[in-house]
Amino acid sequence: MLKNDLLLRALLRQPVERTPVWMMRQAGRYLPEYRATRARAGSFLKLCMTPELACEVTLQPLARYPLDAAILFSDILTIPHALGLGLQFETGEGPRIERPVRSRSDVAKLGVPDPNTELRYVMDAVRLIRRELNGRVPLIGFAGSPWTVGTYIVEGGSSREFSNIKAMMYEEPATLHSLLELLVESTRLYLNAQIAAGAQAVMIFDTWGGVLTPAQYREFSLQPMERIVADLRRENEGRRVPVILFTKNGGAWLNTMARSGCDALGVDWTTDLADARRAVQDSVALQGNLDPNCLYASPQTIRTEVARVLASYGRGHGHVFNLGHGIHPAVDPEHAGAMIAAVHELSPPYHKD
Amino acid sequence: MLKNDLLLRALLRQPVERTPVWMMRQAGRYLPEYRATRARAGSFLKLCMTPELACEVTLQPLARYPLDAAILFSDILTIPHALGLGLQFETGEGPRIERPVRSRSDVAKLGVPDPNTELRYVMDAVRLIRRELNGRVPLIGFAGSPWTVGTYIVEGGSSREFSNIKAMMYEEPATLHSLLELLVESTRLYLNAQIAAGAQAVMIFDTWGGVLTPAQYREFSLQPMERIVADLRRENEGRRVPVILFTKNGGAWLNTMARSGCDALGVDWTTDLADARRAVQDSVALQGNLDPNCLYASPQTIRTEVARVLASYGRGHGHVFNLGHGIHPAVDPEHAGAMIAAVHELSPPYHKD
Repeated sequence: MLKNDLLLRALLRQPVERTPVWMMRQAGRYLPEYRATRARAGSFLKLCMTPELACEVTLQPLARYPLDAAILFSDILTIPHALGLGLQFETGEGPRIERPVRSRSDVAKLGVPDPNTELRYVMDAVRLIRRELNGRVPLIGFAGSPWTVGTYIVEGGSSREFSNIKAMMYEEPATLHSLLELLVESTRLYLNAQIAAGAQAVMIFDTWGGVLTPAQYREFSLQPMERIVADLRRENEGRRVPVILFTKNGGAWLNTMARSGCDALGVDWTTDLADARRAVQDSVALQGNLDPNCLYASPQTIRTEVARVLASYGRGHGHVFNLGHGIHPAVDPEHAGAMIAAVHELSPPYHKD
Repeated sequence: MLKNDLLLRALLRQPVERTPVWMMRQAGRYLPEYRATRARAGSFLKLCMTPELACEVTLQPLARYPLDAAILFSDILTIPHALGLGLQFETGEGPRIERPVRSRSDVAKLGVPDPNTELRYVMDAVRLIRRELNGRVPLIGFAGSPWTVGTYIVEGGSSREFSNIKAMMYEEPATLHSLLELLVESTRLYLNAQIAAGAQAVMIFDTWGGVLTPAQYREFSLQPMERIVADLRRENEGRRVPVILFTKNGGAWLNTMARSGCDALGVDWTTDLADARRAVQDSVALQGNLDPNCLYASPQTIRTEVARVLASYGRGHGHVFNLGHGIHPAVDPEHAGAMIAAVHELSPPYHKD
């Protein structure tokens, strides 16, 4: 029994009494209780890979705030880790992949990971979180998009210019396509396993689709996501499992993304929700889009900006309130609380007939 | 006498026989001759501040390639340097500003620099370059946008999240406006002095306008640029001095930018020129927009991609070929040559009646 299904209804554009709210990276460094668990775990990867600890940090923000969803604590790089590419998280440096994939023969060596064995720690975490949530709010599962995960795999970590993967795209598009194909298949199995384990909605994070030209975006980022969406198990426990796509800096492509078969699109803060809604013509729900930097402002200013985002989406259903990107580590937790309270307080009028 | 005025004509949407071409950062680290001069100078700042050396590197790419413009070798942070904020360029780290501006009283201490004394080294470089160019191609002067320069001044250097300037924007907008006002006035004087010294076109680089919401962009980035444009000397030596605005990741705002009073807009590679042209309805010229990473591909692939960019703009005047952002330091100079040759070879049909 799901006691609060506001998120699921909003993602399916069904009527709700108020706008549901959650935050990308809501289980994260801005919370002292997260930092304590992280310190106990010893490393970020250990935290991801220990179901009890992943469950603990997933639930921490729900103990503080009246949020309408939990999101699995994990990382978009679990698949490269399962591929045996040597994933490391170095403090202050971001992720590093020891054996980047650069050639056709590198790709040929990779095999699709079995999510129920090689990524079992994720499924165990999903099951444990569901048990601990006990129907309080729905649990969102997630994965990185093939393009985004591919950038880390080819570049060997974070990148500013994406020179290696773009050189591959221009000179050896077949190699890149076979890598993306492997990631499509891996991600499809991975998300379906999360759904089978209990994820009630899933989100695909395409953090780096926005560095492509429009034609490249369609070919190398959107199409792989579409192929995943087409093969996802969309119903579980008698309920539809909504799928959310989010391409950062993808504001110009919302219209195309809306035809991907997803139920909802994430929108970053550089696009007005009113424009986004016009672009998708209410064919999908929208999730977003307060500027994460707004949480450095005072609670009063945060309230004003929340009001602005709600007004930008306007009347009617199909809006899930969120930040336009992950919450920053230096934010005061009370400010996050002010944002959530403002959504509770200010959103009901937008849902009255 | 200007022997090659293709750039100036294209920027004013006048007829040309072929599409003019230049590259952002064409005087830069990808050229071994640049690296040699840079080593002789001792530091990047010294290179900017020594007119003879700035002139030397400005002319280097013209000796290699049949480019249609020279662009002053300088930096967008000359104004913060003249403001006495303690600018340093640390190897591999990017710029650092020792005394960032964070409060109303910090702003109150700043005075508008006199371009003809405090930035005289720039004007001397402009005069020297004009003399050495001897009418071969026009010289482009430039400055950073007030918002973009402001991000460095407030953050104290490069930033990923822009937390300090955004906190100021949300909590003390009047302080940010007074800083931007000072930068508007400084930049207006600075660009007019470059024009008086001989710059035949000017470009305003708004590298970080794309991190703002649409409303913030209009208020904090576009309006300051508009106020500069309105006060620029638009005619010199009997010729119109075209003004180019370039907001990276500003594809969604081209239509608004086109009404700023500028003559041309830079377009990064994430927007198709066909869409950009529709957005501005041919009211301004467009400059761009090959993905800089394309230059890692083979000359044959580069030629194909140049053809694609030319076709995307289509028939008619008002296109200046360029990269969508600065050329990367690791590019093979022969590949830049292949791009330029392809523009020479493939563009004439687009200009036939």
